[in-house]
Amino acid sequence: MICGVLGGGQLARMLALAGHPLGIGLVVLDPSPEACAGPVATLVTSPYDDPAALDDLAAMADCITFEFENVPPLALEHLKGRLPVYPSPEALAVARDRLREKRLFERLGIPTAAYAPVTRPEELDAALERIGRPALLKTRTLGYDGKGQWPIRDAGERAAARAALDGRHCLLEAWVPFEREVSLIAVRARDGACAFYPLSENLHRQGILRLARSRPGDPLSAAARAAGRRILEHLDYVGVLAVEFFVTADGLVANELAPRVHNSGHWTLEGAETSQFENHLRAVAGLPLGSTAPVGHAAMVNFIGGLPDPARVLALPGAHLHTYMKAPRPGRKLGHATLHGEADEVERLLPQLLALGEGSF
Amino acid sequence: MICGVLGGGQLARMLALAGHPLGIGLVVLDPSPEACAGPVATLVTSPYDDPAALDDLAAMADCITFEFENVPPLALEHLKGRLPVYPSPEALAVARDRLREKRLFERLGIPTAAYAPVTRPEELDAALERIGRPALLKTRTLGYDGKGQWPIRDAGERAAARAALDGRHCLLEAWVPFEREVSLIAVRARDGACAFYPLSENLHRQGILRLARSRPGDPLSAAARAAGRRILEHLDYVGVLAVEFFVTADGLVANELAPRVHNSGHWTLEGAETSQFENHLRAVAGLPLGSTAPVGHAAMVNFIGGLPDPARVLALPGAHLHTYMKAPRPGRKLGHATLHGEADEVERLLPQLLALGEGSF
Repeated sequence: MICGVLGGGQLARMLALAGHPLGIGLVVLDPSPEACAGPVATLVTSPYDDPAALDDLAAMADCITFEFENVPPLALEHLKGRLPVYPSPEALAVARDRLREKRLFERLGIPTAAYAPVTRPEELDAALERIGRPALLKTRTLGYDGKGQWPIRDAGERAAARAALDGRHCLLEAWVPFEREVSLIAVRARDGACAFYPLSENLHRQGILRLARSRPGDPLSAAARAAGRRILEHLDYVGVLAVEFFVTADGLVANELAPRVHNSGHWTLEGAETSQFENHLRAVAGLPLGSTAPVGHAAMVNFIGGLPDPARVLALPGAHLHTYMKAPRPGRKLGHATLHGEADEVERLLPQLLALGEGSF
Repeated sequence: MICGVLGGGQLARMLALAGHPLGIGLVVLDPSPEACAGPVATLVTSPYDDPAALDDLAAMADCITFEFENVPPLALEHLKGRLPVYPSPEALAVARDRLREKRLFERLGIPTAAYAPVTRPEELDAALERIGRPALLKTRTLGYDGKGQWPIRDAGERAAARAALDGRHCLLEAWVPFEREVSLIAVRARDGACAFYPLSENLHRQGILRLARSRPGDPLSAAARAAGRRILEHLDYVGVLAVEFFVTADGLVANELAPRVHNSGHWTLEGAETSQFENHLRAVAGLPLGSTAPVGHAAMVNFIGGLPDPARVLALPGAHLHTYMKAPRPGRKLGHATLHGEADEVERLLPQLLALGEGSF
């Protein structure tokens, strides 16, 4: 079984490492010959919109998936007629567009922030009138890690947002005052079976995920799973889906979807019976899903811009290192480490791991 | 960090999969272009005794290890002058020779079967006189999976063993009446730190390992670890070492050593905090060892000669599949699966996994 993947970054790399034991090989298409999935997969170097390269990929693969939501929709359409594509282009089209996401949440009765689509400055003014400040202007597509977002708290930021708008399709969202951020990693098989990991509690810095902790037994899990199930079933989804929520005084408020394995689920490599990477491949390949039950507690720290000395990370009891073998660059995710074990031991060691990761910021 | 490995079979394949997250890439040397570590490592196709290929390997690698004990000692000697080789050629020389193994056990006060080196038929007769029947004649080197062994229970088998001897260096061993077989997977770092996994309880069929189960809390663990530590320290060993024992009415009787990651430790991929593969690489690369603490219970079943339908294996709760992507051949190890979870659940499902594996015998 060969799975074709659009995108050859660290998510494809970890998918490939999960695939080999299952007998699922990966062929990844990526514009860069340096794509870090290359050493563990077959690499096709090409732009995503080159029909000949897509045809090559289709000829080599039994099914297709993708590691990021900004893959050109036409590329998936091109492939879809020839072999199974999971998640479906229709599901991707919703998850890559903040407006369609918000409308889906509304339709399914899942609380989300007040919002308004805006393209022209006068629309922004009217939307701000209705939604109030503080608010966030976000591009409808192509945003990630806090990119393509403009907070609007005062007149100066409003002017900056008006200037940034520049005819782009954006969404104005009410600022949600949250106590914490959690995400649900959900997975649905071809036969409709669904499974949900324990909630992840996430901490961002400068829009980039810094820390994600498994929260087995979180009381909000049931509400998150109910929302996740409605989304999976409505989209006839196949594969892993991440749903990010704000936790507010009134409960969960859905923020956004990621139609793929997700950084906040990396701790499942150690902290769950089956990792999100393996379960995504199982789903896409038509195999039975693996158990998503928690295995101990886990806390993952991202290494951004640089990597700490591996020996210092591995000296921490229960630490597991995952390097992506990417060239260092400011703001770039280069690896992560997960502390795994009893909850109190994980919490005791976490400041040390965070300090090691600090050097990489 | 690049680690060169002599041998590119499933052990090298699983080492490679463990190495990527650590940032340790593998270059494997194997005579076969089909070596199953190839898709996850850099493959050098060459006989083990080709000096030019060994030089290529040395030029690409920072350190050297091996996945099987029958690597030509001269190959390691050739490499040793140029870069670190772990385990050392001296340790390998002991572990690949049943006579030197037995003498080591004796010197370290570790109980082992009565034995006698034999080469000529009349030596066999004298040894049988002393040791009695039943006994086992074994080649001193190059035996594995029950190959190179001749049981001697009666005159007919004695004649067959005499004929098989044929001037070869062999060892006659007393037959050990055992209740069960266990193995200790031990690991020692460059700095001398030692760690030991929970005992593995093993079941063989036709000389080939069929089932290995983690036995956290086995009362014989302390004795096995004491023996393991003596061996590791005496050999100034670096890397993973497997010690196989018979469990008899009088306690542990050491059977043999494997100076490498071992089939009876494959369950550590799920059933221990750090797998034997990762810990071998950590040791060889000079990194701190990872925790060898058990994580739940695990039972591993080998797939020999054929693979069951992956979907049927993965439908078992807590089942993890490891295919080696090798061409099927009678008696060949093609993959394994591990059941992982609570002890009673693992035991409840084990007959189903064994039945799936049965089809492959």
